[in-house]
Amino acid sequence: MARPRNDRFLRALLREPVDYTPLWLMRQAGRYLPEYCETRKRAGSFLALCKSPQLACEVTLQPLARYDLDAAILFSDILTVPDAMGLGLYFAEGEGPKFERPLREEWEIRNLAVPDPNVELRYVIDAVAEIRRALDGSVPLIGFSGSPYTLACYMIEGGASDDFRRIKTMLYSRPDLLHHVLDVTAQAVTAYLNAQIEAGAQAVQIFDTWGGSLSHAAYREFSLAYMTKIIAGLKRSHDGERIPVIVFTKGGGLWLEDIAASGCDAVGLDWSIDIGQARARVGSKVALQGNLDPSVLFGGSEVVAREARRVLDSFGPGSGHVFNLGHGISQFTPPEAVTALVETVHAASRAAHRPESKG
Amino acid sequence: MARPRNDRFLRALLREPVDYTPLWLMRQAGRYLPEYCETRKRAGSFLALCKSPQLACEVTLQPLARYDLDAAILFSDILTVPDAMGLGLYFAEGEGPKFERPLREEWEIRNLAVPDPNVELRYVIDAVAEIRRALDGSVPLIGFSGSPYTLACYMIEGGASDDFRRIKTMLYSRPDLLHHVLDVTAQAVTAYLNAQIEAGAQAVQIFDTWGGSLSHAAYREFSLAYMTKIIAGLKRSHDGERIPVIVFTKGGGLWLEDIAASGCDAVGLDWSIDIGQARARVGSKVALQGNLDPSVLFGGSEVVAREARRVLDSFGPGSGHVFNLGHGISQFTPPEAVTALVETVHAASRAAHRPESKG
Repeated sequence: MARPRNDRFLRALLREPVDYTPLWLMRQAGRYLPEYCETRKRAGSFLALCKSPQLACEVTLQPLARYDLDAAILFSDILTVPDAMGLGLYFAEGEGPKFERPLREEWEIRNLAVPDPNVELRYVIDAVAEIRRALDGSVPLIGFSGSPYTLACYMIEGGASDDFRRIKTMLYSRPDLLHHVLDVTAQAVTAYLNAQIEAGAQAVQIFDTWGGSLSHAAYREFSLAYMTKIIAGLKRSHDGERIPVIVFTKGGGLWLEDIAASGCDAVGLDWSIDIGQARARVGSKVALQGNLDPSVLFGGSEVVAREARRVLDSFGPGSGHVFNLGHGISQFTPPEAVTALVETVHAASRAAHRPESKG
Repeated sequence: MARPRNDRFLRALLREPVDYTPLWLMRQAGRYLPEYCETRKRAGSFLALCKSPQLACEVTLQPLARYDLDAAILFSDILTVPDAMGLGLYFAEGEGPKFERPLREEWEIRNLAVPDPNVELRYVIDAVAEIRRALDGSVPLIGFSGSPYTLACYMIEGGASDDFRRIKTMLYSRPDLLHHVLDVTAQAVTAYLNAQIEAGAQAVQIFDTWGGSLSHAAYREFSLAYMTKIIAGLKRSHDGERIPVIVFTKGGGLWLEDIAASGCDAVGLDWSIDIGQARARVGSKVALQGNLDPSVLFGGSEVVAREARRVLDSFGPGSGHVFNLGHGISQFTPPEAVTALVETVHAASRAAHRPESKG
């Protein structure tokens, strides 16, 4: 199977030359799009939408119909894996994800088992295959999972948390138990991402949303170590093509060199770091993805264009940059702000990719 | 007026020799102490407690009666300044601080005026004087304020926020308006901290709780610039003694060099950064304060001792370190964990301060 017709995203991740900087947006299929809200309404709930391969495919393609994006990302939730482990994912109105059966007792932790992605997560794998067919070789499809530590936060807290008191109490008082949770979860994520790759995902991203809440030492031991393990267990090529891996730890800017040494091809950055400084720190070891503050999209198209150019200029000439936001796009984003962003990134980056410009 | 009998905190901030590393804890007078809960109950509400100099003095001294802490910190709230500006601070049960009259219209912003700290904030200034008398030269008293950007977050959002959508929309679409808010607030904070210094505060800390939510560029323009302005306007000595200034931006580890160049004497660190690496980056320019994850205090006294030693060892020998948590102490902390922490920090740091150990 050949590369997609627009392979700029894959080329940038592998630091191969491109004619302009490719772009996709975290949560690009989301509530800021009226057509997404329409489909979600039809599905009845967010989870029903995730669990229907047909509807997940439909919403995955919606932003690509509107904007000239350089990649599609599987529409799903980061918490499908613990749901498949039997924790009972649900969404309380206006409260974010929760688990019916969070891990509270040692026996519950000892009973955790690795789900078979082709059975318990069949609906995701079917969605990947269906989206690949629908994309028909146009742009690459990104698969993803939450990181083991991020999943464990929800599995142990039972939902979102301000202070992560339960998981951090376990981390400091029963690290053996937390390591067990993370170990089983890392095996599950590895199998899950490999099944996505086999079904057609052409790159994968690990979302480490909460790794940044850890101390520098705990991050290495409880988050990065497990992402490194996952990466080592992934199928790194499929159908003759390399499958790039992106690691995104929100708030991980201080730990960039360590993240870059995890075996990943690219590191996702939030907006707290200057991407040019990040590039200077990691050199040509990995590509970088990011890192516009999603709030810039509230500022009007001139501000969007100015701030997007600022990110491009900071990265500088040469390949190895996938443009993105530093976090998921807000549901309050005016859709026309994304038009301005895509146009600016594509147009303004061409000069930096002319053969005479070297990174 | 001479230095307090225990002046280790002031000496460490000024990088003068000490015999052991001094320690205080952000929010040390707080809900984890049963005696605090008792006084708060008596006061009727958190705000009534803040607004009574007698009760504020009482709770300020409570942790010092229990633990061998090396500094007292004024008991107050970071939002007293916008309250004095007329925004109407209140606390909704279980929801954190809110303002009755958040800044929503341009005319409200244009009408903002700098309060006279000796009039509208008299209750704070009286508390400072009363605490100084009660401390009777034992340990130094720290005064404080929120940073202009952090105050503006609450003033514009009207309360806590997950995404800071209102203030960031203003930042990107009407930066002139936000600069006006910050400018007036910075003048108010300068006058407020100077009044605290005149009333007896022997060091001051600027709490920049939300600066870390900004992009690297926006942080410099909208948070750090105003803290720098405040520092330039502070009385840096009083009664013949230097008044050290501490800047604490949560999530500011990437911007350490810039923060250290603000004119402050010390930089507060959260737990995401290795304090030894932070020290290597700022050299002897400033002292450092921090940076234990407050969750360590849930781990039992052996873990507390191990993790506290890890911070001390990472900082290494020599003065210039004030031990603290990387954020306010949690209300769920067992009080005996603080005993273990204080004992460990004082005992374990003595070796690193012997004359033959040089930083």
